[in-house]
Amino acid sequence: MSAKLPRSPLAPQNFPKMLPVAGVRLATAASGARYQGRDDLLLMAFDKGTAVAGMFTTSKAPSAPVDWCRRQLRQGWGATRALLVNAGNANAFTGRKGDLALQACAAAAAKQIGCTRGQVMIGSTGVIGVLLDASRITGLLPALAKKLHPNAWQAGAEAIRTTDTFAKGACATALIDGIEVRINGIAKGSGMIAPDMATMLAYVATDAAIPGDVLHILLRKAVQGSFNMISVDSDTSTSDTVMLFATGKAAHGAITRAGDPRLRDFRQKLDAVAGDLARQVVRDGEGAGKFISICVGGAASPRAAKRIALSIANSPLVKTAIAGEDANWGRIVMAVGKAGEAANRDALAVRIGGLPVARKGMADPAYSESQVTAHMQGDEISIDVDVGVGKSSATVWTCDLTHGYIDINADYRT
Amino acid sequence: MSAKLPRSPLAPQNFPKMLPVAGVRLATAASGARYQGRDDLLLMAFDKGTAVAGMFTTSKAPSAPVDWCRRQLRQGWGATRALLVNAGNANAFTGRKGDLALQACAAAAAKQIGCTRGQVMIGSTGVIGVLLDASRITGLLPALAKKLHPNAWQAGAEAIRTTDTFAKGACATALIDGIEVRINGIAKGSGMIAPDMATMLAYVATDAAIPGDVLHILLRKAVQGSFNMISVDSDTSTSDTVMLFATGKAAHGAITRAGDPRLRDFRQKLDAVAGDLARQVVRDGEGAGKFISICVGGAASPRAAKRIALSIANSPLVKTAIAGEDANWGRIVMAVGKAGEAANRDALAVRIGGLPVARKGMADPAYSESQVTAHMQGDEISIDVDVGVGKSSATVWTCDLTHGYIDINADYRT
Repeated sequence: MSAKLPRSPLAPQNFPKMLPVAGVRLATAASGARYQGRDDLLLMAFDKGTAVAGMFTTSKAPSAPVDWCRRQLRQGWGATRALLVNAGNANAFTGRKGDLALQACAAAAAKQIGCTRGQVMIGSTGVIGVLLDASRITGLLPALAKKLHPNAWQAGAEAIRTTDTFAKGACATALIDGIEVRINGIAKGSGMIAPDMATMLAYVATDAAIPGDVLHILLRKAVQGSFNMISVDSDTSTSDTVMLFATGKAAHGAITRAGDPRLRDFRQKLDAVAGDLARQVVRDGEGAGKFISICVGGAASPRAAKRIALSIANSPLVKTAIAGEDANWGRIVMAVGKAGEAANRDALAVRIGGLPVARKGMADPAYSESQVTAHMQGDEISIDVDVGVGKSSATVWTCDLTHGYIDINADYRT
Repeated sequence: MSAKLPRSPLAPQNFPKMLPVAGVRLATAASGARYQGRDDLLLMAFDKGTAVAGMFTTSKAPSAPVDWCRRQLRQGWGATRALLVNAGNANAFTGRKGDLALQACAAAAAKQIGCTRGQVMIGSTGVIGVLLDASRITGLLPALAKKLHPNAWQAGAEAIRTTDTFAKGACATALIDGIEVRINGIAKGSGMIAPDMATMLAYVATDAAIPGDVLHILLRKAVQGSFNMISVDSDTSTSDTVMLFATGKAAHGAITRAGDPRLRDFRQKLDAVAGDLARQVVRDGEGAGKFISICVGGAASPRAAKRIALSIANSPLVKTAIAGEDANWGRIVMAVGKAGEAANRDALAVRIGGLPVARKGMADPAYSESQVTAHMQGDEISIDVDVGVGKSSATVWTCDLTHGYIDINADYRT
């Protein structure tokens, strides 16, 4: 994209006020590889003893950084010291040369931090299939290391953007054992968003003292209800990554299992941070003009509910109707029908903006097109569907499909 | 759509010259229900002894006509006398009232033809969820019956259009036992196109003497390689229907099984007619500017090859890149990766317009962006992918995703 995109109309007012997380410092720089006049490189440094968990794209063609992080995490939890992220080049489908470029970056970061290469996590986002020029990054590492600061979260969120029109952050404070711990998260993503394990890049850090195996369980649960419940365009990235770092600086007692009741508040707050970040990704969906919540109930299983909800969320005809503020609920029925999951057509009920639209397999006698159209003219659309066969439900979030999406993606590289 | 859409730039030059099929007569009329100044109703009459086979949408919310045709076909093959199709209202998600409206239409047609209601097949296409006003149709049946004519195939193809910008027909002559038989087909469809058993409405008639159970086998095979291999927007309709009628007027010897070697030429010609109609649907894809053929080879199974090819065909990012004439092949790799089928990233090869683009997991050294871009500027795009794990292949057809698609679908009902 040559032209700068206007800030999404669905963006939150402000970046949240994020307090430091003990044991975490950040720094950003401009490599000039792809974007002019902005930082595109993020280094996060973690104190010794930081545990980490990660979830990654299920793509069969994952990027070099996804392969790398998976490999390091497989070595065991608990020894991560740094995270290096570049925006503009995904280092995906770049073969052996891409892997060597990554290793050069990891080595340069390790040298500055004073750790092994394997203790450096890497994230890359941007164009697929273009070789990463490591020298543009490695040369900046000494300066980056000097700049590391506990208060640079917003700058970090700014630096990892690609077509994002705003920086995405979310934070919370949770109590473990009566001790306050912080949870800070940043994310990027606005296109190629169709969750499957994780979506695009999101990094969450806490000063809680939680071992890696427990972190992994908490993260999986948080991702299930957040990043795995959003879709902008049904396209799953080669680079999807969500990582959770725990520096262990907080003074609460030892945690050894995810089911520990002392984690209850932490789990809730972590889920909230992940959900907030995921919904911000949707709010920055390429060309988005409407934020859409889709709740499917009455399904045979949670998996069926999710598949039906995603079938609605990913339907180009539903998304264009919403862009046109047209209460064309027949397309919602179509999308339920094509999902391939059990649904009772003759018991199906649809509500838009909480208003009755259809029930028992046909238009609801109480349906008021003018009321529903008024709701469609807002920028937050809610769709509730009951498929009438069971008791399971799922909620997913998406955005509409507009001319803006075509504009952005018909000339992304030029 | 209030404004009339311009004819697709991908449309064939002319409607084919279709000779009569012995035993088939057609007539069209204007009900005025939705479209002004054009016919929107088609009656086809078949002589006694006409066999029929049909394939229908796998949607869990099928239209009343799909339910009806399935029910009649289940009663046994071989007794169909008429087909009545209306455009503008899909009679889908209309409950018991929609079924009663359908029965009124079938009864009115049966009265004119002199057969039972169950011998009348029904097709409806258009808006979902709006009650069909049967009186607008039943009143026209006497006049329609008087107009029936063996030479009205083009008028029939015109009458069943919705957002289609051109009428779709294909025909062939085949030899069975040395006797010439005709195959005539018409189809409609340009949005909500994602095949699953069949796509939108297509009707094929022949004067061959082939019993219904054999017809069904031939039709299933023809649909597999044609209507089930196209996608415009990944949205599967509530109304998809493909039917094959055989009047038995031709003088060849009795056929009792699909494997009969005397059917060889007929099968080839039937497959060709179905493929031609299916590709015409893609050429009339809503807003389409490019016709795209995607061939995936080296896959683990034919099903895997098809799923990977459809993953590419349905990717909004691939489709918008092609609309922008951008050789952004990284998105093709992304779409292979997200398909969920076995693929060897490090053996993956991509060709566009027959030109080398990527191989062995990275950009091909022989890649010439200027040559590939020249191909992208044409209106017929070919993409070949080898996923490097097996020997199976599949070809699917789709179109690009343009501003025109948004224009058409953001205000379809208004």
